[in-house]
Amino acid sequence: MKIQTRITELLQIDLPIIQAGMIWTSGWRLASAVSNSGGLGVIGSGSMYPQVLDEHLRKMKDATNKPFAVNLPLFYPDVDAHLNTIIKYGVRIVITSAGNPAKYTPFLKEKGIMVIHVVPGKKFAEKSQQAGCDAVIAEGVEAGGHNGREETTTFVLLPLVCSSVDIPVIAAGGVATGRQMAAAMALGADGVQIGSRFVASEEASSHTNFKNAVIQSQEGDTVLTLKELMPVRLLKNKFYADIVSAYERHASREELVSLLGRARAKRGIFEGDMNEGELEIGQAAALIDKIMPASDIIKEICTEFSATITNLNKRFPTQDP
Amino acid sequence: MKIQTRITELLQIDLPIIQAGMIWTSGWRLASAVSNSGGLGVIGSGSMYPQVLDEHLRKMKDATNKPFAVNLPLFYPDVDAHLNTIIKYGVRIVITSAGNPAKYTPFLKEKGIMVIHVVPGKKFAEKSQQAGCDAVIAEGVEAGGHNGREETTTFVLLPLVCSSVDIPVIAAGGVATGRQMAAAMALGADGVQIGSRFVASEEASSHTNFKNAVIQSQEGDTVLTLKELMPVRLLKNKFYADIVSAYERHASREELVSLLGRARAKRGIFEGDMNEGELEIGQAAALIDKIMPASDIIKEICTEFSATITNLNKRFPTQDP
Repeated sequence: MKIQTRITELLQIDLPIIQAGMIWTSGWRLASAVSNSGGLGVIGSGSMYPQVLDEHLRKMKDATNKPFAVNLPLFYPDVDAHLNTIIKYGVRIVITSAGNPAKYTPFLKEKGIMVIHVVPGKKFAEKSQQAGCDAVIAEGVEAGGHNGREETTTFVLLPLVCSSVDIPVIAAGGVATGRQMAAAMALGADGVQIGSRFVASEEASSHTNFKNAVIQSQEGDTVLTLKELMPVRLLKNKFYADIVSAYERHASREELVSLLGRARAKRGIFEGDMNEGELEIGQAAALIDKIMPASDIIKEICTEFSATITNLNKRFPTQDP
Repeated sequence: MKIQTRITELLQIDLPIIQAGMIWTSGWRLASAVSNSGGLGVIGSGSMYPQVLDEHLRKMKDATNKPFAVNLPLFYPDVDAHLNTIIKYGVRIVITSAGNPAKYTPFLKEKGIMVIHVVPGKKFAEKSQQAGCDAVIAEGVEAGGHNGREETTTFVLLPLVCSSVDIPVIAAGGVATGRQMAAAMALGADGVQIGSRFVASEEASSHTNFKNAVIQSQEGDTVLTLKELMPVRLLKNKFYADIVSAYERHASREELVSLLGRARAKRGIFEGDMNEGELEIGQAAALIDKIMPASDIIKEICTEFSATITNLNKRFPTQDP
């Protein structure tokens, strides 16, 4: 199956599905499964020590000869080490997030690496285009994990971003199904980035407890919180209840930092502590009810996408000559 | 022009565009302009005294012989008086919101009136169907004015609601353009409800200052606030800055109630006080940059909708036999 857009042409992939780079979740196993299925697999380097990224890239190279990317949050303490590893392995696509696209894009482009930057708003999209990025990922507030401060939703963000830049736009935030991929294309996108749905994949390195919590969750079970620090969307649990209590007693910023502590995301997502962990996940979790192999997820999304386009065309026949 | 869906069949209208019933904004003038253009005009009774609604219905009857509706927030202090007026004028469609659909739906249905209930989540949609509603309006958190507590976005809410009820679903929250109408249809909707875009119409009774503030606003300029009272999305202004200050000094619920005071929405929306008014508007305001006649708004949306469907079909030709 092939679904062609400006994004599949740019990235030389068969399907306009980018798997989100997710901490503690998207190592070489998930990323290679996605790339081998025709999408773009992405290694989430934000939770990896430099030598761990090295190992994942080595295994990735063995597991696929299809295009893939590395996601690099620009607030990562040792960006330079990661960049060296990325260059060492000849990675051709880097997805940068959470930082200024002007800082590393020229360097990466010079090395012949394609750069896609994640943006929460139109102004950042314009900045990314000016910085020389090849595409942007427009991520709405429904996305899991760290979020922009604008809180613009995917439904409003996409038309804003698509009308303000010429480079291809990838829709992210709340996307988990083929119908939604069709909707994103209607809004002007050239592809979708999907995170939460791939958490519920067999190949994700996240803990089974977390995967099960994701497929069992319902609407209203995620929340955007800790806006004073760095806004993050997570699944409500005991840790979130502690955040609520902290707010109720008017905790200071320092107290919130101390409550968050260190390695809470690892504890929840990777180690499976559903009480004390920080369970980063998107609103789309409410739409997911099954753990599946990544290849089946992609097949299901693409089949539903095509059926949706066919259906739209039947419902609203064009008067075109 | 005709765009047919289950909603246009149900409501006997030409276009699946429902104009949102908005306080201080959608009187007979806007509603009749929309109905006369093929959509469903809706009188927002939430800001009207019973005799004012009576007057608007009388004028509405003179201004159009097309179908129209009255929006009735169920927390309105004098619902019964409004119901009497609705029956007196033989209104055929009532849109209820902000309350339990089981309370008035059977009564209205007995009178031969169609009932559409506004819901912020799947559970409420199921309840509405059980209560006998003819359709639901699934409203995402990007909507202006009062909002549900779930904060589910339109992009996630629509697939959730559409897969949980059999009655037609109308998409609301963030919808202002034809591309978005196409996206809503891809997500499973049978129509759209549009609010903010019609604020920026010539026929809206809102103050010119407010209309101008709406078309000048950019992404990030609206915010969902006062969640302790009844969550409301408004345009950031001096009044909102006062809310922020109140939160910073840990104001009690009572202080917030007193800060909000009475008639702030009227002061802003109807009287044009951009500093002290409560400026209820949706995230879609960022997509709107022109005040237009309602008929032109509808024409533009429908033209863009058709172009989007045609374009989707060209980009992704169906392999259908």
